[in-house]
Parts: sequence; C-alpha cells; structure tokens
Amino acid sequence: MANVAIILSGCGVFDGAEIHESVLTLLYLEQAGAQYQCFAPNIDQHHVINHLTGEEQQQTRNVLEEAARIARGEILDLKELNVSDYDALILPGGFGAAKNLCDFALKGADSSLNSEVERVCKSFAEQGKPAAYLCIAPAMIAHIYPQGTKATIGNDNDTASAMNALGAEHVDCAVDDIVADEKAKVVSTPAYMLAGSVKEAASGIEKAVNKLLSWV
Amino acid sequence: MANVAIILSGCGVFDGAEIHESVLTLLYLEQAGAQYQCFAPNIDQHHVINHLTGEEQQQTRNVLEEAARIARGEILDLKELNVSDYDALILPGGFGAAKNLCDFALKGADSSLNSEVERVCKSFAEQGKPAAYLCIAPAMIAHIYPQGTKATIGNDNDTASAMNALGAEHVDCAVDDIVADEKAKVVSTPAYMLAGSVKEAASGIEKAVNKLLSWV
Repeated sequence: MANVAIILSGCGVFDGAEIHESVLTLLYLEQAGAQYQCFAPNIDQHHVINHLTGEEQQQTRNVLEEAARIARGEILDLKELNVSDYDALILPGGFGAAKNLCDFALKGADSSLNSEVERVCKSFAEQGKPAAYLCIAPAMIAHIYPQGTKATIGNDNDTASAMNALGAEHVDCAVDDIVADEKAKVVSTPAYMLAGSVKEAASGIEKAVNKLLSWV
Repeated sequence: MANVAIILSGCGVFDGAEIHESVLTLLYLEQAGAQYQCFAPNIDQHHVINHLTGEEQQQTRNVLEEAARIARGEILDLKELNVSDYDALILPGGFGAAKNLCDFALKGADSSLNSEVERVCKSFAEQGKPAAYLCIAPAMIAHIYPQGTKATIGNDNDTASAMNALGAEHVDCAVDDIVADEKAKVVSTPAYMLAGSVKEAASGIEKAVNKLLSWV
C-alpha cells in the first residue's frame, strides 16, 4: 500500500489550500488503495481573505491550524515530515500554495520557497520519489526539479511565462488532463486554474493521483 | 435539471460544516446532473475551535463568511433563499449543523432551530419538496417534520434517544447506507457520525444525493 504525504497550505481557495482539490485528493488516494498523512507548515498565513467579499481581514491565522480543518485534526507540522517514511508527495493548489508555501503569487519569477517546503520537496525529488502538484502548486516545480522539467498550470500565459523564467517547461493542458515528466517523476494538472466545477477539477485530479501512484 | 439548495454551517468539522461531506455533496450533485446554490446564515459561529488542538479560540467568525470558503465565494445569505426557486434541499453535517444551525449539540432534546433555518427547512417540508440531512444534521428532522418521521445519525444511543425524545423515529443505519422516509420525502445518512475515511463517508452521501434526486 502506497503511503503518500500531502502538504496543505491553509483552508480556503483565496488564502489557503483549495478545499475541493484537497478533499478530492484524499478521496482518490483512498479509492486507489493508498494511505496518506497530511502536513502543513506551522507558520502564519500570508494574510486572511474574507471569502464572501474578497477583502482582506485584519486577523492572523496559522497555516497548520487552518489546514487541520480539512484534515479533521489529523495533520502534522511539516517539520516532522521524514521523507524516508513516504513513497510519494502531493501538493493541492489554492492561493495558499502560492502565498504560504512560496511567494509566487507576489513575486512570480523572483519567487522562492518556504524553507521547510523546500527541504521536503527537494528530498522527494532527490530520492527519486514521485510527486504531484495541482492547480497553481506547479509554479514551485522549477525551484525543485532540474531545468526544463515539464509542468502545467493550464494555459494562463503570464503564469506560464513566469514558470518558464524560473526554469520549468510549461506545457498547455486541458482541465481533465495531466502533464507528466517521466524522468523527474512529477505530474501536474490545472484543476481550479481552469475548472468551472467540482466535477471538472475532479477529472484531472483523479488522473494525477493515479499517475502518481503508477510510479510508486 | 434539478436545482438544489445547500445550507452550510461554517467551515470545519468541530465548529462548522464538515468539509468532506460538503465537497462530496457538491461532487455527487454535479455527477448526477443537478445544479446547486450554497447558502448559510449570516450569524456569528457559536464558537471557534482550533482544529489542531481541539481547544476553543478567542476569536469571532461569521458562519456565512467561513462557509464561503467551501463554496469558493459562490454563496448567499440564507435570508435570500426563496424556496420556490429550488427543487430540493441538502444539509451536510459537522458540529456547525448542531451548534450554528440549531443548538442540538448543547441542548439535545431541549434544542431549537435558528429562525432562518426553521423558515427554510419547514417551507421545503410543507411544499412537499425533498430534503437530505447528513451526519448530525438529521437531529433537526423532528423540529421540521411530523412526529414519527424516520431519521438516522448511525447508531449512537444517546444521540438517537434525544432525537426520539424530540419526536423523530431513529433507525440504526450503516455508514454506506441511507434511511428514507418516503412520506416526508426526507433522507438521512450517518456520514462522519460513523465514517472512518473519506471513502466511507462518500458511499452513504452518494446514495443520499441520488435518493434525494429520485424524488424530484
């Protein structure tokens, strides 16, 4: 049975992990017979967005505590993630991936990774263990994998250009499809970068989860 | 195409709507070809629970604003719900259903419903439009439907007794099954009252959604 580590980035599309993508990841891992453990960095969120109005709230929330909502409390500090205990890695999207796990949403081609995220993601890559990056999370791929590693966030030109400037090779992709770099063993799918519904996001995420597990 | 109203109660199992149940509800509605609109009451949560530690946080959060996280911002104040616009109703569970939509978690057999929740749920019942109540939400059924209406929250004796004291007829039920009252057109399923995994919750929720839509 494959054992998969999941890195969440909060709880809510505009300031944390995209909730639908996170839940669908858990569902399709279970349906494929894999087990999993959720993790998140124990840091404050970049900010808090009122998801009703889209406005910033004057409040502080912790990424690990908020991600625990998606994981029903079954979550660990990313610092405790020992890569040798896991066969594969998944990062769902949401703005939290680009604001809390790295600063791509703010700095684009000048972005960098949170240090714990960098440690974990690079370890999976260096040990040849497969990984899946969903939605905007593939913007991190160039920081982790060799120059020219294939990745997709769908077809947004500005985002793709920033990823290419960082060293990835962006490949346009439909919402129900995946882009896999067989050498790097990393798969990505657009999910809510393109999806207009849960069902659309689900189609690509199920494929990405199954591709990931085929490498284990 | 069936048009279904969904009432959410926040965002997170311990103080709001159970996130997995809510997302699975959206997924299975879409997969069955239904459309939906999410609603939540515009009130403060009963309290805020740190989902990492289980402890109460000294913070105020609004049920509608937090539920908007699950709905990706596509949500309306429950006050705006015009029952004549919808064919059916679904209430996912989570402690929010029993702390924010009513006070069953605090008062059991002495509980009562939030006034807007009462208006909407009773209107669906009185107009003969079907409804589904998931997880702990069926604890509200006795407040809405005639004495003796069948409902389930799984097999927890204390909860079942309180529901029966309120006037429901609790029926024990497995996690992957449903209890339907054909006369009242109301279906319930235990979901995370019993589920040990997303997949287990999904099995009963998919059945409940499909039963609901069969009545439309």
